[in-house]
Amino acid sequence: MIKVGVFGYGVIGRRVADAVLAQPDMQIVGVVKTKPDYKARIAVSKGLPLYALDNESRRIFEAAGYKMTGESKDLLIESDVIVDASPGKIGIKNRDIYSGLGKKIIYQGGEPADVADASFVAQCNFEQVERKDSVRVVSCNTTGLCRLLSAVDSSFGVDKARVVIARRATDPDEPDKGIVDAVGLDPVSIPSHHGPDVNTVLPNIKIISAAIKIPTTHMHLHTLMITLKDKSTTKDQVIETLNNTTRLVFVSEKEGFKTTGQVFDYGRELNRNRSDLYELIVWKDSINIVDGELYLYCGVGQEAIVIPENIDAIRALIGGYSKDSSIRMTNQTMNILK
Amino acid sequence: MIKVGVFGYGVIGRRVADAVLAQPDMQIVGVVKTKPDYKARIAVSKGLPLYALDNESRRIFEAAGYKMTGESKDLLIESDVIVDASPGKIGIKNRDIYSGLGKKIIYQGGEPADVADASFVAQCNFEQVERKDSVRVVSCNTTGLCRLLSAVDSSFGVDKARVVIARRATDPDEPDKGIVDAVGLDPVSIPSHHGPDVNTVLPNIKIISAAIKIPTTHMHLHTLMITLKDKSTTKDQVIETLNNTTRLVFVSEKEGFKTTGQVFDYGRELNRNRSDLYELIVWKDSINIVDGELYLYCGVGQEAIVIPENIDAIRALIGGYSKDSSIRMTNQTMNILK
Amino acid sequence: MIKVGVFGYGVIGRRVADAVLAQPDMQIVGVVKTKPDYKARIAVSKGLPLYALDNESRRIFEAAGYKMTGESKDLLIESDVIVDASPGKIGIKNRDIYSGLGKKIIYQGGEPADVADASFVAQCNFEQVERKDSVRVVSCNTTGLCRLLSAVDSSFGVDKARVVIARRATDPDEPDKGIVDAVGLDPVSIPSHHGPDVNTVLPNIKIISAAIKIPTTHMHLHTLMITLKDKSTTKDQVIETLNNTTRLVFVSEKEGFKTTGQVFDYGRELNRNRSDLYELIVWKDSINIVDGELYLYCGVGQEAIVIPENIDAIRALIGGYSKDSSIRMTNQTMNILK
Amino acid sequence: MIKVGVFGYGVIGRRVADAVLAQPDMQIVGVVKTKPDYKARIAVSKGLPLYALDNESRRIFEAAGYKMTGESKDLLIESDVIVDASPGKIGIKNRDIYSGLGKKIIYQGGEPADVADASFVAQCNFEQVERKDSVRVVSCNTTGLCRLLSAVDSSFGVDKARVVIARRATDPDEPDKGIVDAVGLDPVSIPSHHGPDVNTVLPNIKIISAAIKIPTTHMHLHTLMITLKDKSTTKDQVIETLNNTTRLVFVSEKEGFKTTGQVFDYGRELNRNRSDLYELIVWKDSINIVDGELYLYCGVGQEAIVIPENIDAIRALIGGYSKDSSIRMTNQTMNILK
Repeated sequence: MIKVGVFGYGVIGRRVADAVLAQPDMQIVGVVKTKPDYKARIAVSKGLPLYALDNESRRIFEAAGYKMTGESKDLLIESDVIVDASPGKIGIKNRDIYSGLGKKIIYQGGEPADVADASFVAQCNFEQVERKDSVRVVSCNTTGLCRLLSAVDSSFGVDKARVVIARRATDPDEPDKGIVDAVGLDPVSIPSHHGPDVNTVLPNIKIISAAIKIPTTHMHLHTLMITLKDKSTTKDQVIETLNNTTRLVFVSEKEGFKTTGQVFDYGRELNRNRSDLYELIVWKDSINIVDGELYLYCGVGQEAIVIPENIDAIRALIGGYSKDSSIRMTNQTMNILK
Repeated sequence: MIKVGVFGYGVIGRRVADAVLAQPDMQIVGVVKTKPDYKARIAVSKGLPLYALDNESRRIFEAAGYKMTGESKDLLIESDVIVDASPGKIGIKNRDIYSGLGKKIIYQGGEPADVADASFVAQCNFEQVERKDSVRVVSCNTTGLCRLLSAVDSSFGVDKARVVIARRATDPDEPDKGIVDAVGLDPVSIPSHHGPDVNTVLPNIKIISAAIKIPTTHMHLHTLMITLKDKSTTKDQVIETLNNTTRLVFVSEKEGFKTTGQVFDYGRELNRNRSDLYELIVWKDSINIVDGELYLYCGVGQEAIVIPENIDAIRALIGGYSKDSSIRMTNQTMNILK
Repeated sequence: MIKVGVFGYGVIGRRVADAVLAQPDMQIVGVVKTKPDYKARIAVSKGLPLYALDNESRRIFEAAGYKMTGESKDLLIESDVIVDASPGKIGIKNRDIYSGLGKKIIYQGGEPADVADASFVAQCNFEQVERKDSVRVVSCNTTGLCRLLSAVDSSFGVDKARVVIARRATDPDEPDKGIVDAVGLDPVSIPSHHGPDVNTVLPNIKIISAAIKIPTTHMHLHTLMITLKDKSTTKDQVIETLNNTTRLVFVSEKEGFKTTGQVFDYGRELNRNRSDLYELIVWKDSINIVDGELYLYCGVGQEAIVIPENIDAIRALIGGYSKDSSIRMTNQTMNILK
Repeated sequence: MIKVGVFGYGVIGRRVADAVLAQPDMQIVGVVKTKPDYKARIAVSKGLPLYALDNESRRIFEAAGYKMTGESKDLLIESDVIVDASPGKIGIKNRDIYSGLGKKIIYQGGEPADVADASFVAQCNFEQVERKDSVRVVSCNTTGLCRLLSAVDSSFGVDKARVVIARRATDPDEPDKGIVDAVGLDPVSIPSHHGPDVNTVLPNIKIISAAIKIPTTHMHLHTLMITLKDKSTTKDQVIETLNNTTRLVFVSEKEGFKTTGQVFDYGRELNRNRSDLYELIVWKDSINIVDGELYLYCGVGQEAIVIPENIDAIRALIGGYSKDSSIRMTNQTMNILK
């Protein structure tokens, strides 16, 4: 049993903890939580051992009536693998704390690429990161792009990918960080960082990205325009390739999917924790090829798409699993559609 | 086993079907669906027998590759109780179809009050509707108000309740019916229909309501100002009374609930179908009494708060259950917090 | 000619400056601006003298190519009246800078009530503040409530006013401070500060307020429930009284006003600076009386409703104008509907 | 004096009427209005002659207290040029009414391209449509794209333009037609109709477009990726070319433009009717060239960008004006920035 500790219990940490609980070969040591809010209360009700960040944080929890299993330094000792699910740019500050203990560390995509030995998307480079000391699971948008582009590239060759990302402004549990009746240019300059971030996993794909921020909370929406190397590629061939790609599912207008709203609703029908969507969503009827250029729309559930990647990253760092066996195990335990 | 058929598989029908599946004393005969969309596909994957609305609808389903168990007229014959979960104002049109078959019928709150023998909220008038032929489960907003007002009235006497309802514009799966960067007066006239609708269940409570429509999808927000008969009532007494009220839970700012966004997130932590909230949400730290007048904020999850009521309504119409035993059974099977 | 200096050139300062320009008895000395953004550029193009906040700020402006008329300390000397239009809670910090110079100072409603000698709404207490040294123009919501409640109180007697304020989350030029798909309780406790703030102008009116924050940018929406002293009051009498109240206009559903969106559009039809609405908007067809209680909906344009009050406040502090003559002059020059 | 009649007084008709009023060589005969709403009231207050659609509509207006100048058939007779500002797809139904009278007709971009003799953007093809019988002013998005692409193409050669349009869901005066917390694919298929629509004005530019719908009301946001023929083109050359292009203005982050919200606010600073933006807005600091491909963000004010085009179209159909003189006259009278 791989012993996993989770640093942080926000959007990502909560989901990683539940996913670890669902794995037959893993055991959760506990989670580090900073504040005694409702998330802490529910973690306790699920039987998750709570660790305070430090001594001061421990006193705050105890004053609020919590019994703490320990502090973050204790969690570090008990764990084989640490999943750092801190807010962006905090993971890299934690690196010093983690170093020298001989633990495997997983960072999230909000950290700079050089925080870890490699960046990671399971179906793209599982083998390359095996038994490394640390790995960075790339961000939700990058994960989605890597799943799609690696499949398209290996079948038809990507000459150049262009993507415009309409980013949800904030997560549902932090509505105050949002935007109202406006589009943010995020950033104003083009290209955005997403293209280079894809290249941390898929170094050979030429990609240009731009990103805008819009008043929604549930999903990023990607518009993709991909010049293919194989100019004879047909729409049906692309559909077949994507149909055979794991963690990527089709939706279509004729089944009622005209907006991301129906996709969110679809996630709620799947009997999953938090109604989460782990799959990259591709509108099948948006797929088109004109003059050797492939067009399509994708939806990226920003909260959950990286969770199966975190689970596979744990196995990759520990070693002894093939890529396919790890992905299969994760998909089955998390009820991933394909 | 009570045999239940569900007419309609939209926001309410889907949830009623799953709730029936969870009851030890009920069995689902099937659901009537009108279109072969993604909801139909998932219903099949859950093993729910699908009935077409009519012969034409059956042909559309079969052309889309569905095997139908029958048509709505067949479902009627097989069922002891029909839950009509049609869109508003359609239930009353269905009444003719239902009549003369000796079946028990449950309508939803979008229908006019005289569609059925009585209107219903389980904890308010379970006994009064026992063994009637039909009942109308009142709307989400009315259900929430009845839960709260009946508790406050029986403990302290409601002299006059005033409520302003900020309604979510639309459900997440129909975002196109929404409103952007504006408040709708819904209706422009005051009082709105919600007060009289409460009186279909609690005829003796004086209540005035106004309703506005806002650009949200997840929850109605009620601001309540209630003049009490017992002028000596204290805030702590109100908290105690509400604490002892079923299907009503407290949230508070100190646990992180500053907006309805955190309440939505809370629902996702509870490991429920569709992340649903069946409970009326009351902000504990909004409860205040000034000059014999009680103030508080409530949140009403518009999709799910009436689902336990539908289950209890089934038992009430069939008869042979006490109010408490039915509510307890429903609460346990649906994992309702209290 | 009254010489006016404006501290701050944000939402309020910009509008006050233009309103001063429109007055025959006033002259603008200049505006204090902190950053060389597009608002500074347009101010220059209008011929408004720009003053830097301080020496450092002056250097930033000059580096951006601006010629500055001076610094804020210079503006102070040149002005008879200073309108402090700083962001909330900054005005009170500026008080020390203003003191001892013998200038008249006007603060905005985001400051604590004791920042100035009195709080002010022109039609409520113009005479009481005459020739004082300083005055605080109350916030947009309080201004709207005072206009309405003073009229209703003097005609029919307000026994108790209850108001629920649905606040626009942010102004259009700061969309990032907003909220998405959620309602904020702002604050979670009831009553909110708006009632006591009304009492700084109208000390004898009993009023309870609650405030929520919603994802809009254009207008606050008030739902009012007012118990009247004169129980024989009719709806028509209320309409007549409000019809005779200055800076308050009716809209109605039959003319197309079903949401605040149409009110915003209406403002754009009036050929005004920035499409601003200076009037309190009352839905005529929401006005109703049941059991001696008056109901109605109001809209408060958060950016502009206080601008005529600032102009009248200037005259009140200088002295020599009657209330009616000042209001009439302001209304005419600003094209206020009535 | 060119006598102009305007059919329809909605978003476009209102603006065209005011723009005609501002022209020294035009006179407004009147506007056809269908309902006696607040827009009709304001039209009257501006002195605009009102024509009822037909006899029935006339009776409705008269019952509401309006004095009508006539009916639409009368307006037709009195006018030299009719600007049809009906809702989309209604203009083409009106074509029969207009035919055979020898009047010049201008349609809007919501009509099919073959409604008129040609499609029109002033700076692109003024000369080609001179003295034609009818012309179609293309839609807001197409107008913006034509202004930009014609300038880029004539300077550097457009090899292929790719554009992703994030469309505002609805106009501020119809907030109920909007979308909440979701992105609509509008349409689900790619490419959208915008590319071919550009080709009705600029037939030789290769362009692919995709369009999504988002919860905003104030502006469309275009992300452009343009492969240039002249591979040596520099960023500064593009800036210079666009700087010399009429009806196109730069904004930049360093002046405070981080979102479309600040652009909307900017429009309100310009002392224009309805705070309208007639110019295509280009983020100067988004302009970039990588590998011979030009990137930039544009904003398109959906309500007003086509208004100067309507004015120029009137002159083009009548004849006797050069392109430059017409554009200059329109720009000066409408206070267009450049």
